[in-house]
Amino acid sequence: MEATIDAAQPNREPQPKPDIRKLLIPLGPVVVFGASNFPLAFSTAGGDTAAALAYGCPVIVKSHPMHSGTGELVASAIVKAAQKTGMPSGVFSNLNSRGVAVGTQLVKHPSVKAVGFTGSIKGGRALYDLAAQREEPIPVFAEMGSVNPVLILPEGLKNRGEQLAAVYAGSITLGTGQFCTNPGLLLGIKSEALTNFIAKLSEAIVKIEPTCMLHPNIAEAYESKKQNALVQSGIAVGADYTAKVQSNYAKQTITTVEGSAFLVNPTLHQEIFGPYAIVVQCEDAKQLEHIISKLEGQLTATVISDNEEVSKYSEVISTLQNRVGRLIFNGVPTGVEVCAAMNHGGPYPASTDSRFTAIGTHSIKRWVRPFSYQDWPNNLLRMLLKMKIL
Amino acid sequence: MEATIDAAQPNREPQPKPDIRKLLIPLGPVVVFGASNFPLAFSTAGGDTAAALAYGCPVIVKSHPMHSGTGELVASAIVKAAQKTGMPSGVFSNLNSRGVAVGTQLVKHPSVKAVGFTGSIKGGRALYDLAAQREEPIPVFAEMGSVNPVLILPEGLKNRGEQLAAVYAGSITLGTGQFCTNPGLLLGIKSEALTNFIAKLSEAIVKIEPTCMLHPNIAEAYESKKQNALVQSGIAVGADYTAKVQSNYAKQTITTVEGSAFLVNPTLHQEIFGPYAIVVQCEDAKQLEHIISKLEGQLTATVISDNEEVSKYSEVISTLQNRVGRLIFNGVPTGVEVCAAMNHGGPYPASTDSRFTAIGTHSIKRWVRPFSYQDWPNNLLRMLLKMKIL
Repeated sequence: MEATIDAAQPNREPQPKPDIRKLLIPLGPVVVFGASNFPLAFSTAGGDTAAALAYGCPVIVKSHPMHSGTGELVASAIVKAAQKTGMPSGVFSNLNSRGVAVGTQLVKHPSVKAVGFTGSIKGGRALYDLAAQREEPIPVFAEMGSVNPVLILPEGLKNRGEQLAAVYAGSITLGTGQFCTNPGLLLGIKSEALTNFIAKLSEAIVKIEPTCMLHPNIAEAYESKKQNALVQSGIAVGADYTAKVQSNYAKQTITTVEGSAFLVNPTLHQEIFGPYAIVVQCEDAKQLEHIISKLEGQLTATVISDNEEVSKYSEVISTLQNRVGRLIFNGVPTGVEVCAAMNHGGPYPASTDSRFTAIGTHSIKRWVRPFSYQDWPNNLLRMLLKMKIL
Repeated sequence: MEATIDAAQPNREPQPKPDIRKLLIPLGPVVVFGASNFPLAFSTAGGDTAAALAYGCPVIVKSHPMHSGTGELVASAIVKAAQKTGMPSGVFSNLNSRGVAVGTQLVKHPSVKAVGFTGSIKGGRALYDLAAQREEPIPVFAEMGSVNPVLILPEGLKNRGEQLAAVYAGSITLGTGQFCTNPGLLLGIKSEALTNFIAKLSEAIVKIEPTCMLHPNIAEAYESKKQNALVQSGIAVGADYTAKVQSNYAKQTITTVEGSAFLVNPTLHQEIFGPYAIVVQCEDAKQLEHIISKLEGQLTATVISDNEEVSKYSEVISTLQNRVGRLIFNGVPTGVEVCAAMNHGGPYPASTDSRFTAIGTHSIKRWVRPFSYQDWPNNLLRMLLKMKIL
């Protein structure tokens, strides 16, 4: 609650200091949009809802139409819990609908004070624009697209190449590539080691059995965006799963491209949501840095390197830091630890407000505002602010 | 810096926990707009600039054209200080201009990452809209209009009426009424005591010598908005300073109106920036509460009451709290203590983002974002994050 107490100084010169006590209070009713890719950890009873309810903000969920059954089951459990614990009526609602009409009305409603969203840039931006155009604009925290660049430095590649190929084949296909932290962009400097890495990664990834995506819309969008990427100038296919798969199963794909071709083609910078990654083969460290300086905002970036090597790339790392919310050393971006030190957000379009995290203890800060009491009667203050200053 | 460390748990089941360390990093270059009403405490070297520089954000000031000389003097001092302390070139700039062209270009520039503004709702909203329409929207913290309602409860009035009249005559005219926390709206319940209070307040305020406003534009806006208020239906003049004054001097004015007339006329809810206040005479406590529920967002609200009495008005206070950023008991809203517990901001249109304060220690939080390092080499972390967890 960030309770902060400034004691009065009645004898201060030239003017007495009043007693001022501050704490965080709830923003008000929060609208949470169900996430296409996270029916449970986000959506109805996920991180946005939990954080808002925890601080005393009523929640209205606009459930995702592709998970409306799951949403109903979860919503019923929340309503039961609210009744059992004597929460006020209306503390939680779940609205089912297709199309944008219900969501639009919710975001425009004067009683709604904040919005949480996890999904596409198009969807998140539309909600952000609606909220910004209100007579009283309200904050929208939208966690949107990210390609989560992986920077493969030469020494790191030399020492870890083989292991890396196996680990990344797993990370790219984890959850059928439906994590917002999926590594969709690998950046390296041309070398025999990089060529070998691409071969090993391709070899490892086609051995993985394709899995089913969450719903047909995600599967169709994956296939269509991937096909669009494959016909771009300079794109070569590293690995493509070609066997027939069941409907809604996603075929994993690795492509490669030269740094110069990647730089000039914005289509190649866009997220392809699913088990897909593009490996950019840069001419040299200078081109690598130039590409990083042109990347959009990202949730994460990963650096594959040796401890000694990375310290020589401090400019590159600093450029990268300006574009992301979390830096990972020699790991994978998938797997987001829910803890106090986690930041899940980043410069636009990773999220609409990089000043907040969507995951971890501090995600609660999206739904609160500071409030000060000046010379307020002690018996009327909340417990936390009642402390006497001696 | 809110440094937060989550130690690794390599043996955790079912999955190891990585080492995650978070701290706040600067958002990037901040544009600060000079405030018409605060050439020093805000504007060039004021709270916005100090907070941004303190956290490592370069600052570009768009100076206010009515204080461009003062702005130049202050800017020169900052530039000298930056040179003396070896700060990087470009850490601070001051741009002079009239009109909106320079400000518009600054807010639209892709390298600018946040905006600070203190001034009118019209100006602040225009900047907010510009920033929200960028390809990469950026946060705008605009501290805008406020009438800072003062709720005068019957017992409080009975016991403190006389003293109150003198104190409020002073608060309404303090700094020629040019504080954003100026009490422009007094709300009471019809009674002989309220009639007496209005008479005493009027008597006290006309005795005060008018003073000079900061510049002709403020003086003209004050006079024209006041004249517009005076011709509204149901408005009676309580006190009007009628003697001739020098140019740019503001004549203090108190008006009164019935609760029902105030409720239906949005013009009467608007700020009249200068030594002006309107006293609303409500029929009863119910009308008082209804009026409070219709008020726009405010920086502050003040409650004049006895300790016992205020606890009977908990619904009213709760309604008031939803509309303001700071509650003051038996004082005046003018005088904003710069301290850790101060909140200077509030629901729109008091500010564009009620989740932040413009004054006090935590005003720095407007210009920072959280950032996480995962498994990052200890020797490359900043000092604050290097602590070893045993």
